Amino acid sequence: MQYGYFDNKNKEYVITRPDTPLPWINYLSNGKYCAMVSNTGGGYSFYIDPRDQRILRYRYNNLPIDRPGRYIYIRDNQTSEYWTPTWQPVIKKLDNYECRHGLGYTKISSSYKGVKAKILYFVPLEDNLEIWSLTLQNNSSGKKELGIFSYAEFCLWSAIADQRDLQYIQNVAVAKYDHIVNAIFYHLFDLSSYIAFFASNGKVIGYDCDRESFIGLYRSEENPVSVENGKCKNSQALGGNPIAATYNSMTLNPHETKRIVFILGIVKEKSQAKQLIHKYKKFDNVEIEFLKLKETWDNYLKKNIVETPDEDFNSIINIWNPYQCKTTFDWARYVSFYETGIGRGIGFRDSNQDTLAVCHSLPKLVRKRLLELAKIQFEDGKVYHIYFPLTGKGDYPDYVNPRMKFFSDDHLWMIYAVSNYLKETGDWSILKHEVDYVEGSKDSLYDHLKRAIEFTINHIGPHGFPLIGTADWNDTLQLHGPNQNGESVMVAMQFHKALSDISNIANELNFKADVEKYNNLAKKIKDHINKYAWDGQWYIRAYTDDGEVIGSKSNEEGKIFLNTQSWAVFSKVAPVDRSFQCMDSVRKYLVTKFGIKLLYPPYTRFYPKLKGISTFPPGLKENASIFCHSNPWAEIAECILGRGDIAYEYFKKIAPTSKNKIAEIHQTEPYIYSQMITGNDHPKFGAAKNSWLTGTASWTMKAATDWILGIRSDFHGLKINPCIPKKWDKFRVTRYFRNAIYDIQVQNPEHRSKGIKLVKVDNIIQENNLLPVFKDGKKYDVKVLMG
Amino acid sequence: MQYGYFDNKNKEYVITRPDTPLPWINYLSNGKYCAMVSNTGGGYSFYIDPRDQRILRYRYNNLPIDRPGRYIYIRDNQTSEYWTPTWQPVIKKLDNYECRHGLGYTKISSSYKGVKAKILYFVPLEDNLEIWSLTLQNNSSGKKELGIFSYAEFCLWSAIADQRDLQYIQNVAVAKYDHIVNAIFYHLFDLSSYIAFFASNGKVIGYDCDRESFIGLYRSEENPVSVENGKCKNSQALGGNPIAATYNSMTLNPHETKRIVFILGIVKEKSQAKQLIHKYKKFDNVEIEFLKLKETWDNYLKKNIVETPDEDFNSIINIWNPYQCKTTFDWARYVSFYETGIGRGIGFRDSNQDTLAVCHSLPKLVRKRLLELAKIQFEDGKVYHIYFPLTGKGDYPDYVNPRMKFFSDDHLWMIYAVSNYLKETGDWSILKHEVDYVEGSKDSLYDHLKRAIEFTINHIGPHGFPLIGTADWNDTLQLHGPNQNGESVMVAMQFHKALSDISNIANELNFKADVEKYNNLAKKIKDHINKYAWDGQWYIRAYTDDGEVIGSKSNEEGKIFLNTQSWAVFSKVAPVDRSFQCMDSVRKYLVTKFGIKLLYPPYTRFYPKLKGISTFPPGLKENASIFCHSNPWAEIAECILGRGDIAYEYFKKIAPTSKNKIAEIHQTEPYIYSQMITGNDHPKFGAAKNSWLTGTASWTMKAATDWILGIRSDFHGLKINPCIPKKWDKFRVTRYFRNAIYDIQVQNPEHRSKGIKLVKVDNIIQENNLLPVFKDGKKYDVKVLMG
Repeated sequence: MQYGYFDNKNKEYVITRPDTPLPWINYLSNGKYCAMVSNTGGGYSFYIDPRDQRILRYRYNNLPIDRPGRYIYIRDNQTSEYWTPTWQPVIKKLDNYECRHGLGYTKISSSYKGVKAKILYFVPLEDNLEIWSLTLQNNSSGKKELGIFSYAEFCLWSAIADQRDLQYIQNVAVAKYDHIVNAIFYHLFDLSSYIAFFASNGKVIGYDCDRESFIGLYRSEENPVSVENGKCKNSQALGGNPIAATYNSMTLNPHETKRIVFILGIVKEKSQAKQLIHKYKKFDNVEIEFLKLKETWDNYLKKNIVETPDEDFNSIINIWNPYQCKTTFDWARYVSFYETGIGRGIGFRDSNQDTLAVCHSLPKLVRKRLLELAKIQFEDGKVYHIYFPLTGKGDYPDYVNPRMKFFSDDHLWMIYAVSNYLKETGDWSILKHEVDYVEGSKDSLYDHLKRAIEFTINHIGPHGFPLIGTADWNDTLQLHGPNQNGESVMVAMQFHKALSDISNIANELNFKADVEKYNNLAKKIKDHINKYAWDGQWYIRAYTDDGEVIGSKSNEEGKIFLNTQSWAVFSKVAPVDRSFQCMDSVRKYLVTKFGIKLLYPPYTRFYPKLKGISTFPPGLKENASIFCHSNPWAEIAECILGRGDIAYEYFKKIAPTSKNKIAEIHQTEPYIYSQMITGNDHPKFGAAKNSWLTGTASWTMKAATDWILGIRSDFHGLKINPCIPKKWDKFRVTRYFRNAIYDIQVQNPEHRSKGIKLVKVDNIIQENNLLPVFKDGKKYDVKVLMG
Repeated sequence: MQYGYFDNKNKEYVITRPDTPLPWINYLSNGKYCAMVSNTGGGYSFYIDPRDQRILRYRYNNLPIDRPGRYIYIRDNQTSEYWTPTWQPVIKKLDNYECRHGLGYTKISSSYKGVKAKILYFVPLEDNLEIWSLTLQNNSSGKKELGIFSYAEFCLWSAIADQRDLQYIQNVAVAKYDHIVNAIFYHLFDLSSYIAFFASNGKVIGYDCDRESFIGLYRSEENPVSVENGKCKNSQALGGNPIAATYNSMTLNPHETKRIVFILGIVKEKSQAKQLIHKYKKFDNVEIEFLKLKETWDNYLKKNIVETPDEDFNSIINIWNPYQCKTTFDWARYVSFYETGIGRGIGFRDSNQDTLAVCHSLPKLVRKRLLELAKIQFEDGKVYHIYFPLTGKGDYPDYVNPRMKFFSDDHLWMIYAVSNYLKETGDWSILKHEVDYVEGSKDSLYDHLKRAIEFTINHIGPHGFPLIGTADWNDTLQLHGPNQNGESVMVAMQFHKALSDISNIANELNFKADVEKYNNLAKKIKDHINKYAWDGQWYIRAYTDDGEVIGSKSNEEGKIFLNTQSWAVFSKVAPVDRSFQCMDSVRKYLVTKFGIKLLYPPYTRFYPKLKGISTFPPGLKENASIFCHSNPWAEIAECILGRGDIAYEYFKKIAPTSKNKIAEIHQTEPYIYSQMITGNDHPKFGAAKNSWLTGTASWTMKAATDWILGIRSDFHGLKINPCIPKKWDKFRVTRYFRNAIYDIQVQNPEHRSKGIKLVKVDNIIQENNLLPVFKDGKKYDVKVLMG
């Protein structure tokens, strides 16, 4: 069943009925002020840190789902009937409901008894506020006397305390209407918070700052007493639950259209709010800021535009996937409708991976982020697992094992991310940048990378594989125990990849000793993996604390894991024959109609030796769900093997567009990736969970652009090496690379997946498939002939 | 406005309309399994620890307020109409709604279109489960075909993770219907949790374990799709939001009555659930357990029964105050509708005070608790501020100052509580009991008390008063700073009281050196207080870190604080003239029509030197609210001064019964005390907050029984020294004391507040007003003549 469609021309996903299986949301954010909004107006806001600077409250487990939000009630003052054009929370049947999620904005429109309402929500680029711009149109033949009530429920700044310590927290915040500025101001009584303000360019004839006054006892957002009665109580909130509710009235003659802009934002000083309100009261300024926003997104997207025979592929790669990549780059796994922004902070592993696919479009931000991340590295090379954006201070999650206080993969991702950055930008200066360690000493970023390698060298287990620590990429593979001996084969492969990457970097720097050292180590670990981790048809996954193998045919459950197959190929550990063999095993055991699952068969009971992974019912999360993040690795592996059709098939299986027609099964938003899709060992096979914040975004983008389309940045140029579905006869990519534009047109007359016959740049035949670095801001015409 | 009345005969508070200003709740608990239930069926359950063993979920900030709960929907299958006899969540107008909160049980009844429903909720004494016993009666003239749906929403065991980490936690729990046992079982997939079960003695013809299946999309408890359609979906929950919903049908002929018992409980093994279900399926067993429960409460109450001319006083002292005392004794400040049971644990200070008023009725439990508490003392005499009931492990709250990691009052409360225990029980063996310190060494309880004294001796500030540490009794008086010099005059008074108490104990033990030492110290601190803390009309409250006085006429705000006046008298620090002077100042500056506020005038802005106390708007919490806990200290002080009318007036000001007719102002339950009543510096003057869990319970009970009625246990007997309102001409108290019953009849023919002319026991005139210890299980006739 379908709930909407892609409007690629406007770069919007259009939702055509409000009752989506889950809230389908959008992130409106300038990177600091962030407002999440659902297709029915639900959602919340925060500034920089969703834990300590939460502006709007959200009730995650609410019934009905998805409350509260940014609501505008419209009341026909002649009939006393009222509704919300966002459908929720009043939930009255509306005509022509439509929600358009665009890049950084959301438009919701609908009609009720002749009154058409349209709300545009967006966060301007520079100002820390959100705009709700309401347009009302009277399409009936009679005059309409309308009441307009706005509503937002404040969170008591600390999102933790807001849920935890009501007896205290509900006595520290104040919200009052300021009759001079004509705005509601909300802050902690002690002024230790920012000051939130809410204003409009309409004439406010009533307001409520106290939730219970506006809503009424035993009522909800569905039927606020103030709306029902058509007047506010002009309440202040001194303690309690502060809100921002205002009341405007409006007369609309037949066919007349009027607008009101509502502004919710935060400032340090009241005077700043005054200026901002003044600015955004003018419709023209709202318009200008909205156009600036659109322009910024267009500039972000244009750095990589693809035209393939597959419209869905184009729509994902040109619009939605890069959009999601920017969101994950901004918020990692910290804050969504499932990540509550309270506990997890910004992950080191996550954030490094999140840089991969925005590097070509946002190199400066990536540079900044990489250097920030390096600061939470310790002198011995390991890193904190998370950090908090407000302070930059590192931390570990609750479940970190105090005796193995590291994640075996975390620090290695830094090498991959920096290598990716170097290839994309050629900015070698970053390696010389001095960065602090947690302990306070400092060193160049290059030395940070070296220490990451050292940490793994110094933490090898009894079978010669890296000790798994608390866990590896798979947070739930918790193999620690009394011997502190759990080992990860996936990290061994990742280590091989990291060694190759740092060796290549050292080579560019002409650090010969390092090159030799890392090459030797790489060879050693590769040989070791092939000697001890090959299980006959695939690679094993790990060893438990007491030396039991995991991911082997000898296991009763969890015989084969996806990641040590894709990574065997991706990391170049596997010889050719084994590469095919292990990826064929993936195809045989792990591929389902909705994507590739993480392991087979699932654990049907709890295993104390494995812990986390066996705490999920079969088919959920790391226990054999289609954990989307690891699917693009299989796509990349298939590209390396030259099997373009399979890579493309895998791509399509989890592609959002392919979920659009089965939205009632998939449930989460069909325009972005989710963390997981329930596996076929579970009765809800196909149901996705935890949308938006997932490493899937970056990696699928990389799989599609770097491997399927095969346009990959390298130290000395842009490499062209596609691995496409055979049926494609051509494709075109406009790619920005180091201050030049490459207009790449690939022909595939022989319908091959792989292989290049000829490369021409501005009609000049090239020696090989590495396009030169031009750096001159010009556009180059690149013709590629496959064959 | 009145929402209900006291039914003293049945020991029930009867709520006659469901839309109370806040949920008016009851605690159903056997001390381990705890179910809170509101007058409309809202509330949640846990086992021992509300943080880590939460059974039912509650949404604290929900709209409408007070959801979810223990709901029973009734559906007329002939008309498809449905309602909930608890009013919430369907909120249909009901006839004859009534909620009777009794001791350990709640009965809710109502009628809708001729069908009368009555639900009895209770937790049996021995079994860890809750009973919902439903009785339906057809009072109409036609046959009724009814559908009965039960509903409970599970919390995902960890109450923190349930709110914090949805992307994970909503994938680890399972709920399934077991067709052999005919019950829903709910537990974590890894079986690390207990197993919750839900069953009934009705024939289950449908069920739902998955919330979304039962409720339906964009619906709520108000209109579940399963109820609307008259059938369940027989869903299982493998992950997601598990619930227990069952469907029974019932035919009721005119005037016929039928019953169904629903059972929700937890067990370690499924087999135990089977036995419990078997037991409680029998109506007779439910009846027996309910009678046992009532008997237990009667036994608890009968240890102190008063008959005074004031019926309200009797109802509070005989029923509701001791009932609340047991609740605070069980749950301290940990879990209510405002305390979310997540962060605070059981407070050391709180728990010691909570023993005071249950000591005569539950001496064994008090002994156990006192010894448990002593275990979180450190070798240097200080204590942890809180501990968690599941592990007994101590901790500090978040806001503890790392450089002054102690609360200056905590450890001293132990001396008061132990002294109270010794006087009540004469059980001197407790002092010899060896108890661990946090560090692992152990010592007798008496030595623990001595170390508490030592800690204060070793932490005296520059003005000679005890260093305040993180804070004192007033958690928000946060005077710490760079010099670590903040000082508390209240703790100095408390220290004097502790020194007197331990000196008296040492005297009984014949430890002469200790007696001398503590008496000298007591004299010293008393003199010091009188020399340096007297402000002319009252005692100052504290010194800030940089030596600024707090609670002095020289202050612009916060000139006078209640506690250093009441404690000056109570601790016997104040000489007679100053005693009257300071309590007259209290009367002049702090007494309002709804109770005595904590300070005057309130802080109108944040003071960095004071922190917490100035983070509240004036009139809330410690910033000049009527902080109820400190009102009984003023009552006691007035009794010491012999001003019975004033003591009684203060008692009545905050007495729950006095709030019954102004419930719309008071808002919280008018049968128990709340933590605070909004002060007269706030627009919501009179509105109470944070009901149930407050030290007010213990201390008001003590003030009323020990000081107003004047019946006080002492080391060698029961002292009689009333200080009553002059208008009372007599009163009678039946008091259990050390295994004898004292039937005390006091005559006051001269209408005095204080003074005793004659005491007779079994007609024998006594030498003084100290009734002897009899220990023989007999009842003694005590006649007292005031004059």
